Amino acid sequence: MSILTVGTMAFDSIETPFGSVDKVIGGACTYISWAASYWCDDIKLVSIIGDDFPESEIKSLQQRGVSTEGLVRVKGKKSFYWSGKYHPDMNIRDTLVTDLNVLADFNPELPKSYLHCKYVMLGNLTPAVQLSVLNQIPIRPKLVVLDTMNYWMDTALDELFLVLKKVDVLTINDEEARQLSGERSLLKAANKIHTFGPKYLIIKKGEHGALLFHEGQIFFAPGLPIPEVIDPTGAGDSFAGGFIGYMARTNEISFNNMKTALIYGSTMASFCVENFSLNKLKNLTQDEIHVRLQLFKDLSSFDKNHLDIANS
Amino acid sequence: MSILTVGTMAFDSIETPFGSVDKVIGGACTYISWAASYWCDDIKLVSIIGDDFPESEIKSLQQRGVSTEGLVRVKGKKSFYWSGKYHPDMNIRDTLVTDLNVLADFNPELPKSYLHCKYVMLGNLTPAVQLSVLNQIPIRPKLVVLDTMNYWMDTALDELFLVLKKVDVLTINDEEARQLSGERSLLKAANKIHTFGPKYLIIKKGEHGALLFHEGQIFFAPGLPIPEVIDPTGAGDSFAGGFIGYMARTNEISFNNMKTALIYGSTMASFCVENFSLNKLKNLTQDEIHVRLQLFKDLSSFDKNHLDIANS
Repeated sequence: MSILTVGTMAFDSIETPFGSVDKVIGGACTYISWAASYWCDDIKLVSIIGDDFPESEIKSLQQRGVSTEGLVRVKGKKSFYWSGKYHPDMNIRDTLVTDLNVLADFNPELPKSYLHCKYVMLGNLTPAVQLSVLNQIPIRPKLVVLDTMNYWMDTALDELFLVLKKVDVLTINDEEARQLSGERSLLKAANKIHTFGPKYLIIKKGEHGALLFHEGQIFFAPGLPIPEVIDPTGAGDSFAGGFIGYMARTNEISFNNMKTALIYGSTMASFCVENFSLNKLKNLTQDEIHVRLQLFKDLSSFDKNHLDIANS
Repeated sequence: MSILTVGTMAFDSIETPFGSVDKVIGGACTYISWAASYWCDDIKLVSIIGDDFPESEIKSLQQRGVSTEGLVRVKGKKSFYWSGKYHPDMNIRDTLVTDLNVLADFNPELPKSYLHCKYVMLGNLTPAVQLSVLNQIPIRPKLVVLDTMNYWMDTALDELFLVLKKVDVLTINDEEARQLSGERSLLKAANKIHTFGPKYLIIKKGEHGALLFHEGQIFFAPGLPIPEVIDPTGAGDSFAGGFIGYMARTNEISFNNMKTALIYGSTMASFCVENFSLNKLKNLTQDEIHVRLQLFKDLSSFDKNHLDIANS
């Protein structure tokens, strides 16, 4: 099944306790498309870039089966630029620079060939742009997944609520779930967020794993302890890419299938953080992915037949 | 199999966003013994209390199969008292008062009937006291579990290292694992902590679950999202009690069996936080526990046969 991916393609300058990189390739749509490309060879990308974005990056996406017909290059302008610095506790980061550049005028028009995508992944962006993309699709896709962040809850909550009504799966982190719902308990937060539209809620907790909520059911995908987290940038987008890639590949919308999709998402995120930019994500082999999936399987496996010993 | 439990019995005054309680029953040994008593009816308790600790509390422990021969009551003195206030994010708390009282002179002598316990749970205490208890046991127990905290790493690190050499399982939280090892990565921290003595390391992460490390193997026990965490006090001790209770009950020392023991520990911790003091932990039925264990099972179950789809 085909996937529509929408989001930024950008340059990032990043400092972590393990080093720093200057103006490397980044952006939600880049990470999502790369991660999804391991499971799906029919991806249709929607994004915007300036003169400065290297043609070779676009070529390598095309070689992965990513259509770039919906990618707009604006002459005389620069690509979106983000610079950030991570604390020793890499769950915390400071944004140093955000230069919107071409993103300020991003108003995507879907090419005709994109209109019948069955799987839609709306990367973290202005809710109004996410909504405008959805409104251009004539027939309801099989699955619409939306990623967002606290910034849009602070600055564009009304538009966010509008687009949430049209979304099947929302992915946010735990603090964002609390902010959006006004509930401290993630269980209560999930119940409230379901009433905003998304029947499925994924709460991403970084190194602590991810939770999937649906109609009172809960699944906890573990976080894999890895030797060295080099750079967390793009982990959430890689997660989203692995998730939507697996869903499109298996083409079965159910809580059960989505549980496995969370493991695929977590697997791609675990690769992403092992190096700066897309360095790791671009060069995975089937064997590597298979071994990593097995690690995730072992991580949460225990003998469930022993759960019935009780005394007194 | 019999369990030796060592630790404080105390009064707590606690303030959480959900209310406050004054001078309620608390203490590591109290929580551990209660939690373990659901799986083991031969528990030998070592602790110290003052005049003020109610006899009825001791009677109700005895009725659960807990021997209190090793409990010392000091006349004319008060029991250990702790007072704390939790932040809206209940992962953070401030200690308001710590009155050691009888604990200042705690120098336990094991009764003869205690000397052949096969399972030993050393609750959070001065490392020197934990070591002194171990040194009184003539034959190496089957399993020694030790709980500690950052306070002892700051103030009694040498003694802590001495007792760690004699311990099979160490339970600490993620920040404490990082402090003890000097490693940010929990994987590296575990490898280093193994060299200090404990062949098994349990890293408790509160609402995010718990990790078990052993000889390069890792298990992730999920945290169960519950509607309302009323009071996290005693959760780590309840976890330890459920863990050692299951291990003693099944009497099989292996990584595999310990995985299930983590689920039992997490289950008891999840009950503990649902009310102040031991209010919930004291009144559980087999049915309630069984239902909760099933929730934990469902929480991390997914179709592992689907982990082999790959593309490209």
